[in-house]
Amino acid sequence: MFSYDHKIRVRYGETDKMGYVYYGFYSLYYEEARTETMRQLGLTYSELEKDGITMPVSKMNVKYIRPAMYDEVITVRTIIREQPTSRITFEYEIYNEARDLINIGTTELAFIHQSNLKPVRAPRELTDQLAQYLKEN
Amino acid sequence: MFSYDHKIRVRYGETDKMGYVYYGFYSLYYEEARTETMRQLGLTYSELEKDGITMPVSKMNVKYIRPAMYDEVITVRTIIREQPTSRITFEYEIYNEARDLINIGTTELAFIHQSNLKPVRAPRELTDQLAQYLKEN
Amino acid sequence: MFSYDHKIRVRYGETDKMGYVYYGFYSLYYEEARTETMRQLGLTYSELEKDGITMPVSKMNVKYIRPAMYDEVITVRTIIREQPTSRITFEYEIYNEARDLINIGTTELAFIHQSNLKPVRAPRELTDQLAQYLKEN
Amino acid sequence: MFSYDHKIRVRYGETDKMGYVYYGFYSLYYEEARTETMRQLGLTYSELEKDGITMPVSKMNVKYIRPAMYDEVITVRTIIREQPTSRITFEYEIYNEARDLINIGTTELAFIHQSNLKPVRAPRELTDQLAQYLKEN
Repeated sequence: MFSYDHKIRVRYGETDKMGYVYYGFYSLYYEEARTETMRQLGLTYSELEKDGITMPVSKMNVKYIRPAMYDEVITVRTIIREQPTSRITFEYEIYNEARDLINIGTTELAFIHQSNLKPVRAPRELTDQLAQYLKEN
Repeated sequence: MFSYDHKIRVRYGETDKMGYVYYGFYSLYYEEARTETMRQLGLTYSELEKDGITMPVSKMNVKYIRPAMYDEVITVRTIIREQPTSRITFEYEIYNEARDLINIGTTELAFIHQSNLKPVRAPRELTDQLAQYLKEN
Repeated sequence: MFSYDHKIRVRYGETDKMGYVYYGFYSLYYEEARTETMRQLGLTYSELEKDGITMPVSKMNVKYIRPAMYDEVITVRTIIREQPTSRITFEYEIYNEARDLINIGTTELAFIHQSNLKPVRAPRELTDQLAQYLKEN
Repeated sequence: MFSYDHKIRVRYGETDKMGYVYYGFYSLYYEEARTETMRQLGLTYSELEKDGITMPVSKMNVKYIRPAMYDEVITVRTIIREQPTSRITFEYEIYNEARDLINIGTTELAFIHQSNLKPVRAPRELTDQLAQYLKEN
């Protein structure tokens, strides 16, 4: 598997009146973390879009274990376990500053050609990079 | 089962550069829809909080079928299939103006006492109201 | 002047840990209110975009008087005092359920042609509609 | 004056269908930047809240000069020009990666005691720290 840890500091505007991060805003943390994970693999999402490929999210699952607190630096671990086809699955584990696991999630994204909205295969540069980490599969 | 349809108009700020609603902001639609669903059942979430009970989300699943468009009036159908215990599950079906099913989701929420953060049973007024719709279960 | 009142119910996700609406999310209320105001004047922003015109915000001023509360239905009054040129100014007054004035704001938006990013004059259909309300100017 | 530069990478969810950062989400950048600025001055907002002081925003002004782009690392310069009283004014200048000034803003925040909602003077530790930078005033 390939995994990458990315740190994010919780903003005030991301909390709600319960005092913790609003359940809907973890999706922004997932997005930031998978973007940085792809960058580690040599691929930026913004370049992908310039090449005419978009990656809409097709599924998301989230399990909220403990709340994330304002001003806390959380660590989002993004995990890729399988070679993408025309879809790619990212798993996320979020840890708080005390190293407690506070949130688990997955997102499935499709590779879509903007011009005709048809699925395309994951870019070769991504699968080549992943190959060295996913060999054992 | 109990079900309630609630209409929401998509804001510009809820779209992203792909041109559609950002995948993370459906959670706001789910929240608005389940709040209105509870209100239909005679219970407002804000009163519940005044009584010392909060309802943090413990799980969310989302399946994105088609995009929701800016300025479109979407219909969020919220469904309750089972009597809540110390947890309640809401299902969501979102339809666009053409009546296409564009999004399916579920959220599980816990009933928690604010003072000690312990789970409590769903309020009697909610389960009583639901009883007439869920009899057949 | 032309003025239009639009009601919005505050979402949980729009509050922050202070217990009130986050200062940054009033911009979403302004956007929703001016969209409905334009619709009253026979012009939808989404049609404008289809005609190749966008309306980026060039200035915003906000004065926060009192907090807006979760689940409250606020009334956003949008006011147009002057005929737009290649820019248009909207004023906003937000009232809570007790009819207290809780927020005042203005936004200035430009009319821009998408193809060349040049300013264009406000659409004739908008200025014609406004003419009957702004005669005295 | 005291000034501090803080870098932020633009998230996809912060853009809108115009392709740039939504005008309302600059407030989140301002918040993140002034929090880091206060931290540089030895004061964290989260500790302030634990001491019973909140800092609601009383005014915001924004001038949008050029758009901020997805995945761009913007630099938010936060400037304090005057000693706070029971209020503090932060100025912001946002620069894109090409070092163009793309956004200017100010926010005024009050120091409020949570228990009685009365204004209080800015904490001594903040004014002492600022004194060395604002001497000439």
